[in-house]
Amino acid sequence: MTSILEGELTRDAFLGGRLQVWQPRRGYRAGVDPVLLAAAVQAGPEERVLELGCGVGVASLCLASRTGAAVTGLEMQPDYADLARRNASENSLPFEVLDGDLRAMPAALRAQSFDHVLANPPYFERARGTAARDAGREAALGEGADLAEWVDAAVRRLKPRGYLTFIQRADRLPDLLAACDARLGDLRVLPIAPRAGRAAELVILRARKGALGAFAILAPLVMHEGAGHVSDGESYCAEVQDVLRRAAPLKVVW
Amino acid sequence: MTSILEGELTRDAFLGGRLQVWQPRRGYRAGVDPVLLAAAVQAGPEERVLELGCGVGVASLCLASRTGAAVTGLEMQPDYADLARRNASENSLPFEVLDGDLRAMPAALRAQSFDHVLANPPYFERARGTAARDAGREAALGEGADLAEWVDAAVRRLKPRGYLTFIQRADRLPDLLAACDARLGDLRVLPIAPRAGRAAELVILRARKGALGAFAILAPLVMHEGAGHVSDGESYCAEVQDVLRRAAPLKVVW
Repeated sequence: MTSILEGELTRDAFLGGRLQVWQPRRGYRAGVDPVLLAAAVQAGPEERVLELGCGVGVASLCLASRTGAAVTGLEMQPDYADLARRNASENSLPFEVLDGDLRAMPAALRAQSFDHVLANPPYFERARGTAARDAGREAALGEGADLAEWVDAAVRRLKPRGYLTFIQRADRLPDLLAACDARLGDLRVLPIAPRAGRAAELVILRARKGALGAFAILAPLVMHEGAGHVSDGESYCAEVQDVLRRAAPLKVVW
Repeated sequence: MTSILEGELTRDAFLGGRLQVWQPRRGYRAGVDPVLLAAAVQAGPEERVLELGCGVGVASLCLASRTGAAVTGLEMQPDYADLARRNASENSLPFEVLDGDLRAMPAALRAQSFDHVLANPPYFERARGTAARDAGREAALGEGADLAEWVDAAVRRLKPRGYLTFIQRADRLPDLLAACDARLGDLRVLPIAPRAGRAAELVILRARKGALGAFAILAPLVMHEGAGHVSDGESYCAEVQDVLRRAAPLKVVW
């Protein structure tokens, strides 16, 4: 992917305007998913956080904004990494971005461990997915490492008792669970459903390194009020509005 | 397990009294789980149904009672199989019970295939579980085949496009999903939660042989009304009451 020209970018507001984020007009564009991911991470201000595949940095910036924690991001596409650094700088948030591939972890990261590792891995499998038209979007959505490699990279970078938090399409939960080996315990799945009574579209998986507790499926987070007969526009449930507009953490009892 | 004497049995009502079921006073005792399992199976009256590990037959009898389908049960503990036959006879329901182990499928079953295979496999893992005091209870709760063997036996007995329906403790969902190989598709997980907002305690997994559709987590079935400050006694939600007392099927859109 060649360098992105200014006219190919948009500047979008997140967290009710607390964050202003540059991202490519075309290709992978951050929506609510990284905001929900950040809201699921219960990081303290002194804790160390790593985001794998941070893109332009929306999840990390949301988390840094809410918690004050210093966040490190890893991104293999240089143009996205550059935008992430610009977004950190323009929002004055403690977010350091490294260029690199999680399958060949940079030495600077191999020397570190973290209290939390989060990620929003690509939503499409390489083997099955239709190639996207834009190279950046393709890399963000479906190329590169598979889920097992994402989980392995995260576990290696976690401190003992540290937390892994991933958001993923609900239909890939079996693959995601299969990627969680005995190094992880206390697995918790938060289904995210568009409306009450509907199947989940996304899941957040939280797991703890070195823990032994059982797997659990939590009550779903429901995004929108009502039955879906009206427009989705501003029908977010109160908890989701607090997350998206007021930078609140999820109220989930993990 | 030696033969069970009459005084060691209880006769319990299911489906609002439609079924009267003999079961051992001690050991594994059927509760709501097999009733929910039966309610999840959408069998037509002409379809062929197999229950693996049928115990005293509660799930099969509920299903036969509701749908009119002829059900075959397989049970490896002779005393439970005997009780299942007695229960079929006394309730005048089309339920045939074979003695045998799903790991060494009787020839009479190997020659047949079914539209539906259901099971309520033991809830405790052999490797981890504490041995139960009663041999029958132990066999029903934790000894014998592992989940992968249950799923494999079910898939082998299914017709192409036939449905597998299992109920299991929620914390074993990763093992259950790992047991579902490429012969199964259209996987659907129904979480069953004691109350709204609480983690699931049970899951029903439905899958289809030879199907290619994606995995989905459905909206949870909530068992009880309210927040749990009152007794569980008769606080079942309306849909659950219909299932338990009026032999209704689950209203789930699978």
